[in-house]
Amino acid sequence: MTMTSTDLIARFTAIVGKPYALTEAADIEPYLTENRGLYRGATSLVLKPGSTEEVAAIMKLASETRTPVVPAGGRTGHVGGHVPREAGTDIVLSLERMDKIRKIDTTANVLIADGGAILADVQKAADDNDRLFPLSLGSEGSARIGGNLSTNAGGTAVLAYGSTRNLCLGLEVVLPTGEIWNGLRSLKKDNTGYDLRDLFIGAEGTLGIITGAVLKLFPKPRGHQVAFAAVNSPEQGLELFTLASQRCASALTGFEIMAGMAFAFTLKHTEGARDPLAEKHPWYTLIDISTADSQQSADQMMESLLEEAFEKEVVIDAVIAKSQSEIDELWHMRNTMSEAQKPEGGSIKHDVSVPVSAIPAFLHEADAAVTKAIPGARICAFGHIGDGNIHYNISQPVGADKAEFVARWGEINRIVHAIVLAHGGSISAEHGIGRLKRDELAEIREPIEIDLMQRIKHAFDPAGIMNPDKVLKV
Amino acid sequence: MTMTSTDLIARFTAIVGKPYALTEAADIEPYLTENRGLYRGATSLVLKPGSTEEVAAIMKLASETRTPVVPAGGRTGHVGGHVPREAGTDIVLSLERMDKIRKIDTTANVLIADGGAILADVQKAADDNDRLFPLSLGSEGSARIGGNLSTNAGGTAVLAYGSTRNLCLGLEVVLPTGEIWNGLRSLKKDNTGYDLRDLFIGAEGTLGIITGAVLKLFPKPRGHQVAFAAVNSPEQGLELFTLASQRCASALTGFEIMAGMAFAFTLKHTEGARDPLAEKHPWYTLIDISTADSQQSADQMMESLLEEAFEKEVVIDAVIAKSQSEIDELWHMRNTMSEAQKPEGGSIKHDVSVPVSAIPAFLHEADAAVTKAIPGARICAFGHIGDGNIHYNISQPVGADKAEFVARWGEINRIVHAIVLAHGGSISAEHGIGRLKRDELAEIREPIEIDLMQRIKHAFDPAGIMNPDKVLKV
Repeated sequence: MTMTSTDLIARFTAIVGKPYALTEAADIEPYLTENRGLYRGATSLVLKPGSTEEVAAIMKLASETRTPVVPAGGRTGHVGGHVPREAGTDIVLSLERMDKIRKIDTTANVLIADGGAILADVQKAADDNDRLFPLSLGSEGSARIGGNLSTNAGGTAVLAYGSTRNLCLGLEVVLPTGEIWNGLRSLKKDNTGYDLRDLFIGAEGTLGIITGAVLKLFPKPRGHQVAFAAVNSPEQGLELFTLASQRCASALTGFEIMAGMAFAFTLKHTEGARDPLAEKHPWYTLIDISTADSQQSADQMMESLLEEAFEKEVVIDAVIAKSQSEIDELWHMRNTMSEAQKPEGGSIKHDVSVPVSAIPAFLHEADAAVTKAIPGARICAFGHIGDGNIHYNISQPVGADKAEFVARWGEINRIVHAIVLAHGGSISAEHGIGRLKRDELAEIREPIEIDLMQRIKHAFDPAGIMNPDKVLKV
Repeated sequence: MTMTSTDLIARFTAIVGKPYALTEAADIEPYLTENRGLYRGATSLVLKPGSTEEVAAIMKLASETRTPVVPAGGRTGHVGGHVPREAGTDIVLSLERMDKIRKIDTTANVLIADGGAILADVQKAADDNDRLFPLSLGSEGSARIGGNLSTNAGGTAVLAYGSTRNLCLGLEVVLPTGEIWNGLRSLKKDNTGYDLRDLFIGAEGTLGIITGAVLKLFPKPRGHQVAFAAVNSPEQGLELFTLASQRCASALTGFEIMAGMAFAFTLKHTEGARDPLAEKHPWYTLIDISTADSQQSADQMMESLLEEAFEKEVVIDAVIAKSQSEIDELWHMRNTMSEAQKPEGGSIKHDVSVPVSAIPAFLHEADAAVTKAIPGARICAFGHIGDGNIHYNISQPVGADKAEFVARWGEINRIVHAIVLAHGGSISAEHGIGRLKRDELAEIREPIEIDLMQRIKHAFDPAGIMNPDKVLKV
């Protein structure tokens, strides 16, 4: 596996210092894998720089010696973006030591963090200052903000606050050449040339390494309320969402939809889960409202929304949380939905989006196509209906062979993605491309789009050393 | 002036048809100027294509023949971006015939428009469908959406809804080579490769021509209230803003600050303007609240905000509008503030932003430096305090020579911009770079940033024919 020469390892090691250059197999191991076990890479060196200048020095040397570099944050990605290639020629650059909150300004409502700051620490720093940093996702305890930015992470607060892209004002980026771009601006309005910031955001570490970021903070809502409401179809779920977004506008901070099957698995396998409704229903929604002024206004808004929904018959049954712990319980069931599929055997997953109005058609068409291909397949669709984003997960038929089922991943992907594309949708709503979807992206996009991306890649990384073979084939 | 050969003119004319290829001096005249009279260009041909395919054919021919092309929308820009160069070698491509609303989807809350659609028409189409398209600015009756996107226009609703960039989901762009990039996606979440959309947005027509766009619509607020409140300093104005944003969060849809001098000129020169307060004050603010649910909630929110502001002594005096016509009156005074400076003689203008927390310091430092340079200069600063964006306008001293005063534009710009930059600010918050600020941008930015922009420019427009010499020197 040792493809990087001893001499070169020594030169890289000299930049960060010996304790921060890992070369032992046991130390390197955690950097070679990803959560779903889809890839296992190889490397002879993991570097843990302690400053932007060290990152720059590493990239300068990498550029001179044409050494490919894979940036790593919390390594919680789902598409293999942080895993070095199998050949062992890549070195890994981990941002984990660069985990500081550099500054908070509660008048400008901005927070400046290192690229390696853990998302939960950013949330906490905001909270300690009576502010909200709204990015929230399952892996927030270990995900790092540079990775969240590089993948333009989504999560559960996108409806009201947007994806990570919308939560960032400025960046500090080390370029593949080792130059530092200081774009750490705290400006809400700045029309001075091309939007470099948004080019690095979502580039999955293929154009440079995000070493610092200016993040937006928001006032903490004073009111928060959640309801769990049953609907008889995706169509009705969409009608309920439309009503909620009209009545609550930006106070509607979450609107999730869940198939009955997904909820049944959660009830069965998630500790402490209980059905808040008396009867079973085909679909469920979770409605989350946050108001600026008071708890009373959140309560009133939720009550009058559901009242109107019952009148208009766009809801079958519903319950409003009576306490913070009930709010937590409801969200916990939604957040563990993916996990709850595991005891049911193999699962084939999709992270897709379609225009919001196309969600019911997509779900019906995909259900029909998947159950035709695999009779008995159990569809555990759930997701962020307001974002048009469905985690279209399929559990194996009862009693089926797990390996045989999972082996059909590619085939089922093609079936589902064809329906997504027919609706003008996206094959990766929030997880990105990485290695997992790189070749598929090249197939489904018009050549001009891939060509424009290649031109940008070449303009920024002429040596092709920056996280190569991710997003685009080098 | 005729630098384009007769043969070439004939070939371009054949693409759009004779009625849509202007060659007569009188017909061409309106395309040679801009509102402030800073530039006067020359051209021998203005083309008015009727379709994306015609735009593509024009760019293909331009690319083959290396003919520079200047795209034009409503031609309301302030930085000379739409004016052909004086040499007369550029042709102008006007989007004015491509002004259709292509589609509205009120469930997905999106509207698809031609690049040449007039902003007011987009607003009206949204309104007719009980939706809001929040982009709003002085020139909305003639500005076209492709231009708004190309300049990432700001306006008065940025605080709650963001700049034009935040209002767009997808684009259709004709590239300098004549290829068409169809990125007309209606997706709220789509993490599939580099963010090409945001690269074209704000590129001022130097990377391609925006021929179509998917725009976001929002629920129409049911409640709307405006207050006019006096404060004794920018510091107090900022405190009032901070309080308002905490109490109202996303319901705070506007927060403007105005220097006493700016308001005095408005009272003097704007027809129908009247002072709603009993006494004169050094600074004024305009607070705009929109609520999703009801008029009552907007009224209550404004009342309790001002009550708390009086208690905390962050406001001197205030009045709440008692009717829609009073709301309109208050906004009209703010919107005509720039116009009201005209009768007072020459004016030197700045469109700058700083981090919100730096606004008071910027204003004090700039006032001191400007009045030191030009004793008696009358400072009419006003702007969007919540966006950190101040239109720092300076009227000539009483009795001064207008031409002599305006001749000091560059000198005063340098003084003010130096203070802006010291605060980490932007020399163009919303108007863009165009020709006006191109050379200054190259001076103030680190070379690596200009270099990255040049690399992108070259990757997209290798022949250098796309609105050349705007934003970047070719």
